[in-house]
Amino acid sequence: MIRVGIFGITGYAGYEAARWLERHPAAKVAWAVSEASAGKRLAEVVPGPLDLPLLAAGDADWGAADVVLLGLPHGVAARTVVAARQHGVKVVDLSADLRLRTPEAYAAWYGGAHPAPELLPAPYGLPELNRAALGDAPVIANPGCYPTSVLLGLAPLLEAGLHVPGETIIVNAASGVSGAGRGLKQNLHYVEANENFSPYNIGRTHRHVGEMEQELAGLAGAGVPVVFAPHLLPVQRGILSTIYVRVQPGLDLAALHGRYRERYAAEPFVRVLPVGALPALSHVVHTNRCAIGLTMAQPGLLIITAAIDNLVKGAAGQAIQNMNLMFGLDETAGLS
Amino acid sequence: MIRVGIFGITGYAGYEAARWLERHPAAKVAWAVSEASAGKRLAEVVPGPLDLPLLAAGDADWGAADVVLLGLPHGVAARTVVAARQHGVKVVDLSADLRLRTPEAYAAWYGGAHPAPELLPAPYGLPELNRAALGDAPVIANPGCYPTSVLLGLAPLLEAGLHVPGETIIVNAASGVSGAGRGLKQNLHYVEANENFSPYNIGRTHRHVGEMEQELAGLAGAGVPVVFAPHLLPVQRGILSTIYVRVQPGLDLAALHGRYRERYAAEPFVRVLPVGALPALSHVVHTNRCAIGLTMAQPGLLIITAAIDNLVKGAAGQAIQNMNLMFGLDETAGLS
Amino acid sequence: MIRVGIFGITGYAGYEAARWLERHPAAKVAWAVSEASAGKRLAEVVPGPLDLPLLAAGDADWGAADVVLLGLPHGVAARTVVAARQHGVKVVDLSADLRLRTPEAYAAWYGGAHPAPELLPAPYGLPELNRAALGDAPVIANPGCYPTSVLLGLAPLLEAGLHVPGETIIVNAASGVSGAGRGLKQNLHYVEANENFSPYNIGRTHRHVGEMEQELAGLAGAGVPVVFAPHLLPVQRGILSTIYVRVQPGLDLAALHGRYRERYAAEPFVRVLPVGALPALSHVVHTNRCAIGLTMAQPGLLIITAAIDNLVKGAAGQAIQNMNLMFGLDETAGLS
Amino acid sequence: MIRVGIFGITGYAGYEAARWLERHPAAKVAWAVSEASAGKRLAEVVPGPLDLPLLAAGDADWGAADVVLLGLPHGVAARTVVAARQHGVKVVDLSADLRLRTPEAYAAWYGGAHPAPELLPAPYGLPELNRAALGDAPVIANPGCYPTSVLLGLAPLLEAGLHVPGETIIVNAASGVSGAGRGLKQNLHYVEANENFSPYNIGRTHRHVGEMEQELAGLAGAGVPVVFAPHLLPVQRGILSTIYVRVQPGLDLAALHGRYRERYAAEPFVRVLPVGALPALSHVVHTNRCAIGLTMAQPGLLIITAAIDNLVKGAAGQAIQNMNLMFGLDETAGLS
Repeated sequence: MIRVGIFGITGYAGYEAARWLERHPAAKVAWAVSEASAGKRLAEVVPGPLDLPLLAAGDADWGAADVVLLGLPHGVAARTVVAARQHGVKVVDLSADLRLRTPEAYAAWYGGAHPAPELLPAPYGLPELNRAALGDAPVIANPGCYPTSVLLGLAPLLEAGLHVPGETIIVNAASGVSGAGRGLKQNLHYVEANENFSPYNIGRTHRHVGEMEQELAGLAGAGVPVVFAPHLLPVQRGILSTIYVRVQPGLDLAALHGRYRERYAAEPFVRVLPVGALPALSHVVHTNRCAIGLTMAQPGLLIITAAIDNLVKGAAGQAIQNMNLMFGLDETAGLS
Repeated sequence: MIRVGIFGITGYAGYEAARWLERHPAAKVAWAVSEASAGKRLAEVVPGPLDLPLLAAGDADWGAADVVLLGLPHGVAARTVVAARQHGVKVVDLSADLRLRTPEAYAAWYGGAHPAPELLPAPYGLPELNRAALGDAPVIANPGCYPTSVLLGLAPLLEAGLHVPGETIIVNAASGVSGAGRGLKQNLHYVEANENFSPYNIGRTHRHVGEMEQELAGLAGAGVPVVFAPHLLPVQRGILSTIYVRVQPGLDLAALHGRYRERYAAEPFVRVLPVGALPALSHVVHTNRCAIGLTMAQPGLLIITAAIDNLVKGAAGQAIQNMNLMFGLDETAGLS
Repeated sequence: MIRVGIFGITGYAGYEAARWLERHPAAKVAWAVSEASAGKRLAEVVPGPLDLPLLAAGDADWGAADVVLLGLPHGVAARTVVAARQHGVKVVDLSADLRLRTPEAYAAWYGGAHPAPELLPAPYGLPELNRAALGDAPVIANPGCYPTSVLLGLAPLLEAGLHVPGETIIVNAASGVSGAGRGLKQNLHYVEANENFSPYNIGRTHRHVGEMEQELAGLAGAGVPVVFAPHLLPVQRGILSTIYVRVQPGLDLAALHGRYRERYAAEPFVRVLPVGALPALSHVVHTNRCAIGLTMAQPGLLIITAAIDNLVKGAAGQAIQNMNLMFGLDETAGLS
Repeated sequence: MIRVGIFGITGYAGYEAARWLERHPAAKVAWAVSEASAGKRLAEVVPGPLDLPLLAAGDADWGAADVVLLGLPHGVAARTVVAARQHGVKVVDLSADLRLRTPEAYAAWYGGAHPAPELLPAPYGLPELNRAALGDAPVIANPGCYPTSVLLGLAPLLEAGLHVPGETIIVNAASGVSGAGRGLKQNLHYVEANENFSPYNIGRTHRHVGEMEQELAGLAGAGVPVVFAPHLLPVQRGILSTIYVRVQPGLDLAALHGRYRERYAAEPFVRVLPVGALPALSHVVHTNRCAIGLTMAQPGLLIITAAIDNLVKGAAGQAIQNMNLMFGLDETAGLS
């Protein structure tokens, strides 16, 4: 059994990881850290099904873990990666610290100096697009939730160069409230978030724009400008990205659909819906899957709709998928 | 036009009062206090339809108000009542400070000495049960949300002595999240409250037990023990109380129903549903009404179900109803 | 008092109209038709605050009404307009029957021949854009919900010719479930719609595309192609449209914002938010208002966000606003 | 691998069973029946993660199944049990057909003659209370959702005779909307159920009263009258039962709590919360567990709160637990 340490288990991503690991045939939670609640038990802090003692970070038992999953704020995470590597423990980092390839990009999007630039670049843990780099990696940068949906939605198109180069791609997205984290903020109070729907950080200000553009450039072989408009959605979990992209004139939907089906034919976690069908959160919540739909809005303008569970394929599930790859397990182990 | 000052307008009850006053034909908001956000405008603090400058309590313009509505924490409210009376301004106090008739009762349920015992007893502002005391009152204690539903539900029975004296009445109730206030708490985070349902303070620990028993004793002419189990319900607003009460043997439902219909025949805000119908929140939300249903569970055991909107009949609407009475207006003015 | 007949009162729009008319100082519901539930009372059919006898359409008392509001399916509505006009009764038609100016456009978007082509064109009842045509109109076509948000969002831009002519405008929109009507469908079952978010009829297939393009062309003086992606949102009510539009190079946000503020300065129901603020459903639900925000995503690409309550400004409230204009009342009467 | 056939897979319980079986290490879905959608694929009918061809009941391949799970309406289920047994296939029946021990009881609560009285009595599949009868059973009656929560909540008390014999037990319960099934009804429309809370069938009219009283009598060794008030709760899933029961005078909470802890010490799916803690749906949704809290409301009056997921411990999860017992597997297999 792979022994997993979890940092930040009282956060939504850390907790979700622990829930999935309960079902994993070859891995189990060895210990868990919650800096804010150290000394308590998890069941006292989170009224859910799990229970575990909560350790301070300084009490992490590195010798009792083969890998750690980091559900930590950015900044804190990188320092924990350094500590883990000093003890020879592998890491899947769910924070943003290792997602951007250079300290300059980090400074541009997250502000300030990178806390551990020697860790960069780290392999970007989106297995469907980058599997070859992940099997031997001791440290993996788990992708952001929005970028996961956008990259899986656009990859078959951009890899084949079927988009119009240089044209801005518009990503209109909505995320369930768990994506905003467990910290207390007025707009996350039930009465403010429920029966509401609100755009935030729209344009090019959300930090995930940098991550998306970095990875899209890699897929397309050239820069791809993105305009991104996220919205807070009154559900527990789930992301739907509605993506507007200019495609080569003359491309028809059947050909594009065939390309998508072929590209993801062997992928257990990606489902390209039949022509005419559109993904909904119900296709994917509580699964590690991404569901994708294609619609030709008018000649030359494709709408790609892509749905994931932000806590699973957008965080904890993908982290376990990456962990499976790191340890040579079946990539789907524990994720059905 | 009656000029109304509102204290605590950024809270849910204060804001709701201001919303209803927009529609009032004979009253209008003159100014509003928010101690925490003084100097800002309301629209900056609450993303809703209203906008007003927010004053500090010390800047309240007493000369420009005929009455103040207090949506304040208990303790703070009583001191504000004293200040208002010194300026000859009438008060409807939505806090708990004036609901209990004696300082001893206040100390027992709220802890500590009453901040202004000279104000006690104040008339209890449930017009359907206590209208005669309200017309000339300069200060009215606006009832608690749960007690409003329970008292309206039980009054016709207890006034007629149809219950079994001394038997415990069980009140199982559920309230929308706005009832817990706008302050930030972990259990009110959207992700914790949504898709959840949780009992809290059950038994005889909730502070509204004291208020209910005080008023029920007044109706029955003798003490009526209450066991109370409130639950947090994932909706914006609304209270449903399901009340189990032992009634005199031999009473049949038709007779009881007739009694209720007669008791409330002239009440514009109370609706006794036909036999066989049960109230739901949808009957009452966004109205100042109480809907009541009666079910004979078994001989001698009656179930009364009573629904209100906790922010309207349970708070701001009832406050305006009381204000209307204070100023000799039509009791329903501004409340349709 | 203006006497109002309501057709389709058990539907969400008809019911909402009746609720608002309870508060109207100069109008009241005279009678109400529900073909499916004729002979029952409204409170038996809809568990809400209202009660009225329900008439069959054939029993409509034309002599007892000055105006009728039609919350009817398209096709049925036009025939009812004809009947009303034969009796000299004014009409606000909330259906789609009179929104498109020609029978050809109707056939293209709704299928089949128009049931009463002699009624076309009818004045389009969006007062902020077309007030001059409405005061003397005996029949008004009440706009669609989505088009109301989109037209108010785009009008200041297109009227001034600040967009790039011929470029497709992308409208990504989300509507609360009441927008889908009260009829039973599997995707509207609580368990399917709750905790879900789903695109539908995206591209150029939704019928509101025809209505939007017709009115946008009128504003711009030339055709404006629209791509429209509506989504079903798990809330009771509310529409948020996130609109992506190419604007003239060199335009800055401050100038655009000034233009919007000026255009709507005298409009009681339109609120242009400060630069940097974005509308949410909470700004507008249960009001007849539209809240608009402007964001320059990148040079030349403007994001307009516009929120309304689909049942109020998107249906019943706007119908009452139109009725007020028809009868020379204050346009805001009954709508605060 | 145990081969499982599912009848009624498009219903919520059948679908949930298929989802859990995806994770089961020793069982898998062999085929699935949906009479209403036979010939289609599951993904066409239910927009969720699963896909399977849907068979007509007449095409069930009995030779390819070791056991069938029946998510069928009562009446239809019993006839399917007969067919399964004729082919030597084991059955877990999730309907009500086999829960009552006699045809007379069935007729009293469900109306009409029992469709297959020769099947009665069938072992009642609540393993924590009746495990000994289940290992060798070819047919098991899976308990109702509400009774599961109530029986687990009351068993330790009644088995020990700590209640006051003959006193009515009051069960106030709330269930998520999936408990009402996938069929279309007006009160299950999203707009009617959301932001609502409504009692239904309160008193002694709900069919689960008969089932509860039968099993409670078995635990107590004498009849136990129940008054039951269920409420429809705006969540996807989950049941909370708040149970009021008279207990022997002098019993203190610590002793009762000890009794509960001891009774369930070896049960993997029952969690007795610490004194002072109360169960919420969040403790149990998406798990096969029951969480129980105890509160002494006043001397002699105990409040038991018990939470389950109605689709898991209240239906599909418990069915798999029963299936595991039938086949000699670890009772928890596939249920973490």
